[in-house]
Amino acid sequence: MQRRGEFELIAQVFAPLAKIGASPLASSFGLGDDAALVRPPPGMELVVSADAMVRGIHFDERTDPGDVGRKLLRVNLSDLATKGAMPVAYLLVAGWPADVGDEWINRFAAGLAEDQATYKLPLIGGDTIAMPSDLVLSVTIFGHVPSGTMLRRGGAQLGDYVYVSGTIGDARLGLLVAHDKLALPAEDAAFLRARLDRPNPRLRLGQDLRTVAHAAIDVSDGVLADLGHICEQSGVGAVVNEAALPLSAAAQRALAAVPGERPGLAAFGDDYEILFTVAPGDVSRLEALATRINLPLTRIGRIASEPGVRVVDAAGREVRVEKRGFQHF
Amino acid sequence: MQRRGEFELIAQVFAPLAKIGASPLASSFGLGDDAALVRPPPGMELVVSADAMVRGIHFDERTDPGDVGRKLLRVNLSDLATKGAMPVAYLLVAGWPADVGDEWINRFAAGLAEDQATYKLPLIGGDTIAMPSDLVLSVTIFGHVPSGTMLRRGGAQLGDYVYVSGTIGDARLGLLVAHDKLALPAEDAAFLRARLDRPNPRLRLGQDLRTVAHAAIDVSDGVLADLGHICEQSGVGAVVNEAALPLSAAAQRALAAVPGERPGLAAFGDDYEILFTVAPGDVSRLEALATRINLPLTRIGRIASEPGVRVVDAAGREVRVEKRGFQHF
Repeated sequence: MQRRGEFELIAQVFAPLAKIGASPLASSFGLGDDAALVRPPPGMELVVSADAMVRGIHFDERTDPGDVGRKLLRVNLSDLATKGAMPVAYLLVAGWPADVGDEWINRFAAGLAEDQATYKLPLIGGDTIAMPSDLVLSVTIFGHVPSGTMLRRGGAQLGDYVYVSGTIGDARLGLLVAHDKLALPAEDAAFLRARLDRPNPRLRLGQDLRTVAHAAIDVSDGVLADLGHICEQSGVGAVVNEAALPLSAAAQRALAAVPGERPGLAAFGDDYEILFTVAPGDVSRLEALATRINLPLTRIGRIASEPGVRVVDAAGREVRVEKRGFQHF
Repeated sequence: MQRRGEFELIAQVFAPLAKIGASPLASSFGLGDDAALVRPPPGMELVVSADAMVRGIHFDERTDPGDVGRKLLRVNLSDLATKGAMPVAYLLVAGWPADVGDEWINRFAAGLAEDQATYKLPLIGGDTIAMPSDLVLSVTIFGHVPSGTMLRRGGAQLGDYVYVSGTIGDARLGLLVAHDKLALPAEDAAFLRARLDRPNPRLRLGQDLRTVAHAAIDVSDGVLADLGHICEQSGVGAVVNEAALPLSAAAQRALAAVPGERPGLAAFGDDYEILFTVAPGDVSRLEALATRINLPLTRIGRIASEPGVRVVDAAGREVRVEKRGFQHF
């Protein structure tokens, strides 16, 4: 497998990424130094988060390398979105095994470049290393929020309504499509694959939620688990109405084709929508927000005093959620 | 191999590390959230850097897991030192293969805990993932410097003297000891192993150099390569006097035992000393500094106009440096 050395890789592939989205908020020195500088403006705090992806766990040989680059940035951007933060810059630590060549890396970097332009997000540093056999790609992302306003997991209050943005379950169904376990019309298949491979970080929503939501998290482990994290950090419980979980038209048709998947819906992960809680008195403000940013926000449950997350059907009967286990590739 | 799940690992092993060295400069929220907050004080800029270590490349099964934790922090602290920055906090991304169990992780975390206490460095976040086969440990570190004062690789000026702190070559010789390729008296062997496994980030020196040095880098790839980075970023060249490279007493005895290693001295890496340049007029200030912090600073060469780094012997004859290739395990 043809591959450049570390210095050529940095000069030819990564240094150009330091220019895309560059701003005075962060300096990369063209990746020619050991460190970068980040300067949050006065009155702002820096939000930092890290998420890694590994071949064989989060993607596989069949995944388009450009989509690996895009998804790597988007799952990290989703963490910023969930905090109500504006993106500033990112670091990349990449570990390359011998079987990953220049061609794969070029396509991966092209995916990064495309999304860096979309999200105004410069690469400001990192590390590139040889690996004995695994391919690992790790991003540390920086954003900022006005001091004291970062959205947290803790903060949900008794009586809050639980909302989720967009639609739920598309990514899990897209994974079944990717693995040839679900045959669908081409348009539905492409939609679900795109939801899996190119999630849409809800940055605008997150920023607007800073003054409305009590608690927020992104749906990566599934509604049940992620709402569980909110409850644990907030010292409360929750009840979710399974019938209220918002489904795309493609997901509705897909679930009709594989009805055995439906009991796992509240455990489907990787959608990167924002799950959040608001006081009942703020519902009209929230509805105005949904209209303004043209994104469906669906009420799916409420915060309760009994610990844990219960899922109920439309009639209020408790539903047992089947955890489908392996959420990734 | 016995191993906790991801949530137990975070709660039992990593959450306690968020408390060691904690300060108002960074908030981890007990690792119970997706993100952390970093707040550089007014007038300070945030320095960020990332360095990863991989089993089979940077350490191996024979390395004490506590030393892996300590070295992981120290190589990152060395990047801060080289910038003249004060440590603030770090993120850890850890990828665990199935053959790494609780026992290894506990000892690794104990090494982190020990150095976090020494360097007042809290863990504020990161990611923990399963790996198909490799063990990878990646740190993103945060420090701060007064705005506009970060030491850089670029900045060396024609006529500058080139200095290095401490001693050179110990880590490479320690690696030979670790691999049973160099038999030495126990005390020398232990000293060289310690220099390899527990490098000493020169934080105090770096902070004091902010007002003296024109350019700085840490010796990780070897004097020749690292001075080459300074020259490249500064648009100059350099001449190094090989006979001036400072050797510990143990290294002098070791080189007598393996004389074939000596021609590679300027290419020995992993020492994590600071290599820097100063104007000739600042030598007396520098000598006062060396005395104040009780650390030898040795003049090893000068910045020249001809591009590239030349190594010469005491008589001024050019020396061919033998690159020993594999610098790691």
